[in-house]
Amino acid sequence: MVHYSRSDLDKLPSRFKSNLINSCTGYKACNLLGTVSKEGTTNLAIFNSIIHIGSNPALLGFILRPLTVRRDTYENLRQNGCFTVNHVNKSIMEKAHQTSAKYEKQISEFEKTGLTAEYIDDFQAPYVKESTIKLGCHYENAYEIKENGCLLIIGSIHHIYLPENIQHTDGWVQLDKAQTLSGVGLDGYALPELLTRLAYARPDEFN
Amino acid sequence: MVHYSRSDLDKLPSRFKSNLINSCTGYKACNLLGTVSKEGTTNLAIFNSIIHIGSNPALLGFILRPLTVRRDTYENLRQNGCFTVNHVNKSIMEKAHQTSAKYEKQISEFEKTGLTAEYIDDFQAPYVKESTIKLGCHYENAYEIKENGCLLIIGSIHHIYLPENIQHTDGWVQLDKAQTLSGVGLDGYALPELLTRLAYARPDEFN
Repeated sequence: MVHYSRSDLDKLPSRFKSNLINSCTGYKACNLLGTVSKEGTTNLAIFNSIIHIGSNPALLGFILRPLTVRRDTYENLRQNGCFTVNHVNKSIMEKAHQTSAKYEKQISEFEKTGLTAEYIDDFQAPYVKESTIKLGCHYENAYEIKENGCLLIIGSIHHIYLPENIQHTDGWVQLDKAQTLSGVGLDGYALPELLTRLAYARPDEFN
Repeated sequence: MVHYSRSDLDKLPSRFKSNLINSCTGYKACNLLGTVSKEGTTNLAIFNSIIHIGSNPALLGFILRPLTVRRDTYENLRQNGCFTVNHVNKSIMEKAHQTSAKYEKQISEFEKTGLTAEYIDDFQAPYVKESTIKLGCHYENAYEIKENGCLLIIGSIHHIYLPENIQHTDGWVQLDKAQTLSGVGLDGYALPELLTRLAYARPDEFN
């Protein structure tokens, strides 16, 4: 077994440590966040920190790195209040990853990567046409994490778009049918295969 | 394409809505959190909201539902300041899921599920012996999410244990070699297969 103590971690080279810490917490969601600036420039950025916050009301969250450098996604969503969350699937993996490159503010990652901006139902932020599961969200709040200056952004879910035939009769969405990917660290992409769904767990029904 | 608007969501039955909203944000990490009470009762609970918060210092976070009912994990980690994060792998999937059953406070989920509590390097919280990737963490802070009363708990990573031969020379951990699972909604378990790692993205190197 390999063991890293806190003092070992403190001595690691920055890139090595970043790879280790980013991958050791488990698989991550893989989503593209779409926004548009007040000048009309679309922005697309890959995020691997989207998490479920609550169902009633329908809320999600994601982590934004400190605002010490330009953050186009944040600036845009604060300006017009809207952003989209688009699942990364196998067929757009390379293009999705490329959105992490540091393009100038006036450059659209849609244009540079070849992904298609799509406006649906008058929503004020662009979806990714090639993504098969997509959400339209409103900005709700931001919480500063004092330990490192990151922000937890809270959004409310106002639109959900799904392909036909991937949702079960109880509401659950079978993500492997959409070839949704999960992430490992900053640069690894994995394709999950569904093993099972398990019944609601009760104390007296397990051996 | 299936479309749910906000007003559609507001009309859905509670269980259906919970299944939909919990699965539509993408794959989730799948971890068991181990704690111990001041009376010495071990506690183990499955969490699917662990996220990376930062590498320097090494921080992770997870979402805790509102404190309107008993939350043993939270009470324990506030009392002694320590908790463990243990990856759920394929061989312990059913036992891990069973920890979500509502056992009484004085009952240990380790005992009920047959998972083995293991203390390593004098750390004051139990690890899961059957889990192959595990972290020892200290409680750092809690942020209340006012939109629904949930808490974002921040922990610092003090120990990392990995199997031999799953870490690359640049620090990155290949999770599929440990058969780590990812979650879909509240009850789905998937086994990811690594597709690739992609190079650091630069604006001028993509066609």
